[in-house]
Amino acid sequence: MDCVFCRIIKGEIPAVKIYENEKVVVFLDIHPVNPGHMLIMSKDHYENIIDCPEAVLKEIMVAAKKVSLAVVKALDLKGFNIIQNNGSVAGQVIPHIHWHVIPRLPEDGLKHWDGRGYDDGEAGAVAQKIKQSLK
Amino acid sequence: MDCVFCRIIKGEIPAVKIYENEKVVVFLDIHPVNPGHMLIMSKDHYENIIDCPEAVLKEIMVAAKKVSLAVVKALDLKGFNIIQNNGSVAGQVIPHIHWHVIPRLPEDGLKHWDGRGYDDGEAGAVAQKIKQSLK
Repeated sequence: MDCVFCRIIKGEIPAVKIYENEKVVVFLDIHPVNPGHMLIMSKDHYENIIDCPEAVLKEIMVAAKKVSLAVVKALDLKGFNIIQNNGSVAGQVIPHIHWHVIPRLPEDGLKHWDGRGYDDGEAGAVAQKIKQSLK
Repeated sequence: MDCVFCRIIKGEIPAVKIYENEKVVVFLDIHPVNPGHMLIMSKDHYENIIDCPEAVLKEIMVAAKKVSLAVVKALDLKGFNIIQNNGSVAGQVIPHIHWHVIPRLPEDGLKHWDGRGYDDGEAGAVAQKIKQSLK
């Protein structure tokens, strides 16, 4: 397995580290959407939220809150996004679970995806399918 | 306080519910980016990840994994995004913490935000500021 994030975690590739503990590491994205854009990830290799154990997801979330507080204070932010992409079809480039923390600026021009409506009966039908797949 | 999500949680406004437990509820977004777009939130009112207790964030994450597994199976997805917006400047419309789970389709045309580079010394300077604000 040749995972660039695992190599960063091992120290084989440099990165600007913000925070780490036993399970989680946070470093700057080298292609920031805005300055201070961070990546939070587990030190162990999991591909996405589906194969990542609950205990690790919880550790990631605690770290996400911690570094979010810090970046808000450091850059005097009014807002930020936390984004996690699962699968290349969803924009995941490195298949090692990671969460983006993206500082937002009032005039940064970043657009959010538009929603649409459901046709009659469509929402109920999709909900029924999802509920039947819960376990 | 007149929070539309609190009113949904109290049953005063209808929603298509997917899952709930003591702390967390998941329902369909009425303006889905793609069909099956869900919102995960705490039943108690918190505005964002900054004021939401760690214990609640952990419950939300466990629920996120649970409903993600279900929607992947139900809709045979190859990928999905998990997105949380903090602050109106970051696209947060309802100030009650919530996470979007957005199913992705190969030809859905949704664009991701472009990154840029850092100037010499800029990454180190911003990292230093953030690290000094960690507590």
